[in-house]
Amino acid sequence: MNLENFLLAVRAKRPLVHHLTNWVTIYDCAQVVKSLGASPVMAHAAEEADAMTSLAGALVLNIGTLTTDLIASMKRAIGAARQRRLPVILDVCGAGATGFRDQMSAALLDTGGVTIIKGNASEIARVAGLSVATKGVDAGQVAADLVAVAKALAQARDAVVVVTGEQDIVASADTVYRVANGHPLMAQVVGTGCMATSVIGTFVAATPEAPALAAAAGLAAYEIAAELAVAKAPTPMAFKLALLDGLHALTPADVASRHRVTVVAQ
Amino acid sequence: MNLENFLLAVRAKRPLVHHLTNWVTIYDCAQVVKSLGASPVMAHAAEEADAMTSLAGALVLNIGTLTTDLIASMKRAIGAARQRRLPVILDVCGAGATGFRDQMSAALLDTGGVTIIKGNASEIARVAGLSVATKGVDAGQVAADLVAVAKALAQARDAVVVVTGEQDIVASADTVYRVANGHPLMAQVVGTGCMATSVIGTFVAATPEAPALAAAAGLAAYEIAAELAVAKAPTPMAFKLALLDGLHALTPADVASRHRVTVVAQ
Amino acid sequence: MNLENFLLAVRAKRPLVHHLTNWVTIYDCAQVVKSLGASPVMAHAAEEADAMTSLAGALVLNIGTLTTDLIASMKRAIGAARQRRLPVILDVCGAGATGFRDQMSAALLDTGGVTIIKGNASEIARVAGLSVATKGVDAGQVAADLVAVAKALAQARDAVVVVTGEQDIVASADTVYRVANGHPLMAQVVGTGCMATSVIGTFVAATPEAPALAAAAGLAAYEIAAELAVAKAPTPMAFKLALLDGLHALTPADVASRHRVTVVAQ
Repeated sequence: MNLENFLLAVRAKRPLVHHLTNWVTIYDCAQVVKSLGASPVMAHAAEEADAMTSLAGALVLNIGTLTTDLIASMKRAIGAARQRRLPVILDVCGAGATGFRDQMSAALLDTGGVTIIKGNASEIARVAGLSVATKGVDAGQVAADLVAVAKALAQARDAVVVVTGEQDIVASADTVYRVANGHPLMAQVVGTGCMATSVIGTFVAATPEAPALAAAAGLAAYEIAAELAVAKAPTPMAFKLALLDGLHALTPADVASRHRVTVVAQ
Repeated sequence: MNLENFLLAVRAKRPLVHHLTNWVTIYDCAQVVKSLGASPVMAHAAEEADAMTSLAGALVLNIGTLTTDLIASMKRAIGAARQRRLPVILDVCGAGATGFRDQMSAALLDTGGVTIIKGNASEIARVAGLSVATKGVDAGQVAADLVAVAKALAQARDAVVVVTGEQDIVASADTVYRVANGHPLMAQVVGTGCMATSVIGTFVAATPEAPALAAAAGLAAYEIAAELAVAKAPTPMAFKLALLDGLHALTPADVASRHRVTVVAQ
Repeated sequence: MNLENFLLAVRAKRPLVHHLTNWVTIYDCAQVVKSLGASPVMAHAAEEADAMTSLAGALVLNIGTLTTDLIASMKRAIGAARQRRLPVILDVCGAGATGFRDQMSAALLDTGGVTIIKGNASEIARVAGLSVATKGVDAGQVAADLVAVAKALAQARDAVVVVTGEQDIVASADTVYRVANGHPLMAQVVGTGCMATSVIGTFVAATPEAPALAAAAGLAAYEIAAELAVAKAPTPMAFKLALLDGLHALTPADVASRHRVTVVAQ
């Protein structure tokens, strides 16, 4: 699949990745984009949602600390992205935890302007209309076959669906990829999920013509950097630092030789 | 006092700790909960204050970057916590610096739903109605006998009062603990006070039937991790990293052998 | 120029530096002030803008994640600073990216209460009324002679103008300094620009009678710490940690022996 080409595209194009995201991990989302060699911007005023989005190569949305004002700005940004055919990546962070969060996720998806829906298993199951128990923003239990859920949601929403977990699923209407890279230590660090979304946004900004494979390549690159970082720094915060610096130093050869991305269904 | 049992309870129960906190240290508050093996959530929309609080084992409030909207959400969250008899920990960050901050602290306390009031000496003195000079969010000078102030405030507000400092005081109406762990380097790192509040929230979520002793045990665990971290990393930012990773690695034996928690008044 | 005296003044006076800043780098802005031995405070409620500003030695404003509410609070804070003759440092972060940002920058400058205007080349050019292409919050291309632009803006706005870049320019109506310290790795770390503004605020708070030279001294100290940090930690995140800890440890002799501050025009 030559996934290393997606990393090369990020570094060659250095896209601007615009974010309306949460206040917990906003710094890490910005830094992970910069560590990839691209350029982050974060701004949430409704008055500049159109103009700032129009400058970008992709729009990353994350509802982790949503408010009604923030959702209104996100809708305006989605409108601007749509006009310019920019990819929009929505992290449905915490979906299933509250009815408000579910309604706001649905409202953003109902715009029809979301290119990639990303969440953990319980969040995606909830967005897909299944009944799940979500524990805050961490993954709950999901019994259903995730691949089938992801694929059905991809078809229903005409979007790529990314389900992160021990193995990640990237599903479009016609192809499903599995990404088997990564390390359990990522779950001990706040923000690794949000950073994954920003990584996907950066890769899709650089290669918007292949959003599913770009998302899979981005996840693989990020999780390969995590594997390499664990070897250097096996405690959570030292690992986080090494992960960000490892992304900065990641080589195409690392991606080519270590990725575990496979096609699981056609 | 078998304080190690409180750490074991945190790790066994892995409680969800909900936060409405400030935008400066919000990441660190989330990570310190995760480093303890528990699960943080941060959300501040009024529309989901009830629902998110209802999922949690404790509610942590911090007025560091308060606004009227945030205080309104906090009141709704307190209401939900009260209905479910969840412990509520309020960090009166910056109390005494402005009249607005004092009014808002009082409004939150006047709900009657705060279980633990936490601040440094000047903040607690101000909340107790004494006249003090606060310098921003750092501790000012307090002449009065802190133990007496804390105990009186505990009685007046029917709450546990935690006063952090070189030695911490944890006062309920009938018992006062002193925690003599910690290290001066903590004062050189932004967020160590806010993280202490989240640690207390995590410990009290795991052992809500003994809030004062759980708070003292949490402070001791956190400050023992700080003592161990200073030995490895004596500069502020390296220390902060080592502190968070040290909490992740802290053993019950560390707590049992190193804690300096004593009863100072009955 | 005895620039080490400005560092000594910061450490002797330990000023309180109040911030209304962005949500991305708010922690780093606070920590960099603390690492210098001073005291940061961040608060943005309009209700306490006057009171909190009145406690401070300087006011730092940064429009990175501006909203209309935040700008309104900034105006109130500027008013309070003006009454007390406190220096006000405005980081015109992202100026040129959107019309909204340009209008809000102008509105803040039109108060007449800004002492120091700080930005990168493209931001300052835009604030000066030149037509430039800004790419989000990173520097765009500027053809004009920066020294002339900065000096003209300083005269037009009766302020000190700081233009950061490979070499920094600090221009007042009658003197222009160049600061040639620093390292390219700073550009790989989100927040180094915002932290520079907080450093300037801290130095100007300690020596308000010489804002231009204090700004130059602050930039030099910060960038000398960066040079020393790169030698210890040449990857972006490790470097950031070493930079903050290096500021904490920076000696007057480091400043005296390593600064590359020169007068470029009278």
